[in-house]
Amino acid sequence: MTSAQQTERAATVTTPSDREIRVERVFDAPRDRVFAVYTDPELIPQWWGPRGMTATVDRMDARTGGDWRFVLRREDGTEEGFRGTYREVTPPERIVQTFEWEPMAGYVVLETVTFEDLGDRTRVTTVSLFYTTEERDGMLASGMEQGLNETYERLDELLAKLTSR
Amino acid sequence: MTSAQQTERAATVTTPSDREIRVERVFDAPRDRVFAVYTDPELIPQWWGPRGMTATVDRMDARTGGDWRFVLRREDGTEEGFRGTYREVTPPERIVQTFEWEPMAGYVVLETVTFEDLGDRTRVTTVSLFYTTEERDGMLASGMEQGLNETYERLDELLAKLTSR
Repeated sequence: MTSAQQTERAATVTTPSDREIRVERVFDAPRDRVFAVYTDPELIPQWWGPRGMTATVDRMDARTGGDWRFVLRREDGTEEGFRGTYREVTPPERIVQTFEWEPMAGYVVLETVTFEDLGDRTRVTTVSLFYTTEERDGMLASGMEQGLNETYERLDELLAKLTSR
Repeated sequence: MTSAQQTERAATVTTPSDREIRVERVFDAPRDRVFAVYTDPELIPQWWGPRGMTATVDRMDARTGGDWRFVLRREDGTEEGFRGTYREVTPPERIVQTFEWEPMAGYVVLETVTFEDLGDRTRVTTVSLFYTTEERDGMLASGMEQGLNETYERLDELLAKLTSR
């Protein structure tokens, strides 16, 4: 991959308001495929989380009102849980869900994920809404951007594999 | 109870910002006692919820990071769940917890409950913070105030019973 391609590949992270983080990324796959990967518990372990970590799905009922919980395991064997509830699942356009990192339980984030049809490609926009600016700034300072880009690269690889089948 | 006493007994409900509801109520019991009743799973069924409904405790780990889930059963046998996580439990001063009504799962409210020592009495202030003004206004329109006052009257009765022991 050339440097120009890598630059294009990086997610665009902005702060549209003092309680939000907006992340935009384009994937080389049609919208139905990208939406399916986001909502299929069989595929989550193949892409969810930064490199070097392995996700297992504890719960994933990807429909309005359903719950989800994933566990990320590091190479040293330590684990951390992530969980939330699907407030809305509207295939193949939108997922609205809560997101909670269990070591900071109660710091709930409301995520709205929008899937935009670009033909053979899909633009995924995730807007995370926090209760306060302090909580938003804590997330920005956590190194989320690197982890996010690694997750999206793993998703690129999975989508390429699914397309070549 | 005279009309003047009833007026004094009603909770004071205000909206200090466009995403908050603030509820203030004074109870005739010392702070340690009131805090204990808020955090004791054995006592929840005796006061939690409006009159005519019975609460059962499914989970209640009243410490920082712990989860809670109560089920309210109506006289007709129908049930609804409420749940959340204790973000902070600081006896006997403060509880910060999330609150979710399961029929609207994902609409999480952040509640900060403050217990103020007034000697033989305790002022309990609950500030509920919503993600948006629309969600806050939905709660205000839900008839919450009557249910809240009934809950607080049941709490008065329980505190009187505990004090007379």
